[in-house]
Amino acid sequence: MKQTSFAEMRCSVARALDQVGSWWSLLIIRDAMMGARRFKDFESSLGIAKNTLTNRLKELLDNGILKQVEPENGSKYLDYELTEKGRDLAPIIMTLAQWGDKWSVHEDGPSFELRNKRSDEEISRLWPRDHDGTAIDLADVMLSREGRNGQETRTIAPEAGGLNDD
Amino acid sequence: MKQTSFAEMRCSVARALDQVGSWWSLLIIRDAMMGARRFKDFESSLGIAKNTLTNRLKELLDNGILKQVEPENGSKYLDYELTEKGRDLAPIIMTLAQWGDKWSVHEDGPSFELRNKRSDEEISRLWPRDHDGTAIDLADVMLSREGRNGQETRTIAPEAGGLNDD
Repeated sequence: MKQTSFAEMRCSVARALDQVGSWWSLLIIRDAMMGARRFKDFESSLGIAKNTLTNRLKELLDNGILKQVEPENGSKYLDYELTEKGRDLAPIIMTLAQWGDKWSVHEDGPSFELRNKRSDEEISRLWPRDHDGTAIDLADVMLSREGRNGQETRTIAPEAGGLNDD
Repeated sequence: MKQTSFAEMRCSVARALDQVGSWWSLLIIRDAMMGARRFKDFESSLGIAKNTLTNRLKELLDNGILKQVEPENGSKYLDYELTEKGRDLAPIIMTLAQWGDKWSVHEDGPSFELRNKRSDEEISRLWPRDHDGTAIDLADVMLSREGRNGQETRTIAPEAGGLNDD
């Protein structure tokens, strides 16, 4: 699926992508977050070829994103479960879902809803914020990174607006 | 790179991935956020084969994530620029960068830094929050989606903690 390893790149985005593995892997992680635990759960949710699924699951185990645990139902196969590192991918899945619902909505309407279990309120878009929780305009977000030509600093979306302009 | 189109899937995560295209596309978007505008900018940052880059750029234009604009420097080629839809991918790039810096840090240290231009403060992790800006424990985030078996609702990370447990 992927011709080049991004692991040796200094950039954290590239390193995150390398650890996750592939598009399919993100959907496997999404399904694990939705309670899939067994090979058959992932297979039936994704409609994916068995050997592709086997390879993707192995990669996620090797990278410490999934782990194998005793099965819940006495099956002879081990179940798959997200590790702490895997659960911590939730903000990535959520930002993808929120973007998809905004820009590529299905004819039947949005497919995702995120709610706070305690208040039953819908959860806002994941967005850059100050430590006090105030949303920041994208135009005010400065990103510094180690690029091929040393340290680079940039306003990432100079023409963009704030959370409420959406 | 990708065998199957995710476009027909109802899930917003799958639809977002389909629109973005590939791992390389995310790095192209990252570079555009860091100011890359010309074919050569992307090529030298990514070390990618010309034909792969050409295909990925075309896909991003077709999906309305990049647009072509008059060149800044009088070159005979058009520049590439993110559209509003493309700039709105910033939270995805940021969550990937923050996860990568936490879980797959390079030996030379974190490669990304996000700051608020106005206050010069570092920006917190992008995290699910209530409308008043209060961070929510991942264990309290309920996700509903249209799955293959109808509407499913789940706590996505029942064992996970809050933003400060990181």
